[in-house]
Amino acid sequence: MTATSGSAQKIADEFLRAWLGRDVEKALGFLADDIVCEAPSGRFEGLDRYRQFLEPFASSLISGRVIDVLGDDTHAATVYTTETPFAKDFRGMDYITVEDGRISHVISVFDLSPAIRARGNPQQ
Amino acid sequence: MTATSGSAQKIADEFLRAWLGRDVEKALGFLADDIVCEAPSGRFEGLDRYRQFLEPFASSLISGRVIDVLGDDTHAATVYTTETPFAKDFRGMDYITVEDGRISHVISVFDLSPAIRARGNPQQ
Repeated sequence: MTATSGSAQKIADEFLRAWLGRDVEKALGFLADDIVCEAPSGRFEGLDRYRQFLEPFASSLISGRVIDVLGDDTHAATVYTTETPFAKDFRGMDYITVEDGRISHVISVFDLSPAIRARGNPQQ
Repeated sequence: MTATSGSAQKIADEFLRAWLGRDVEKALGFLADDIVCEAPSGRFEGLDRYRQFLEPFASSLISGRVIDVLGDDTHAATVYTTETPFAKDFRGMDYITVEDGRISHVISVFDLSPAIRARGNPQQ
């Protein structure tokens, strides 16, 4: 963990630790109701859709580790690695925008291909 | 672009702009000779291997855009989107460590699945 700090950085850090710890409801508490997320699978809006996005992944985690959270007052980048049923050392990063104390926008970056392979369906 | 600054942030920003602009040799100039990269396809070391990793992607770019570069003196996160022959608005993030003025470690995060689909080979 590096020494940068700021409100977005702090909120992103708490958000990341919550979901890596499989506490999805605590993580969702950091998000705006009209959260916009751009994920590898597409763009979606709203807290319910974010729950559908996060819960299957977070609840299946074997373990998760914060690598770093960089940022300032308005934006942050989270860096993490996880062990999942489909991949070891599965890394991801989120680019997070905070407005009025809540996360309003997430660009979520990770590799879909291990999960696709695990499902045995290369077309999804 | 947010207001954070630091030497790693500045180097990461220049590195990102170089390769998004398809100037691979300029980008490689920011890297340590013994650069270590953890990419979705695996871990590798050395400048030659990094060239083999970066060049096919960078040279095929139709366009690229910096979304943000966050960081401090030692670490940075780059956030970008590209248009490639296989995907539009193809996003990625790098987590970059700088030592002695050069990038020594990169965790590169992006979705391999669009390129796999484009190759028609779901197993790679």
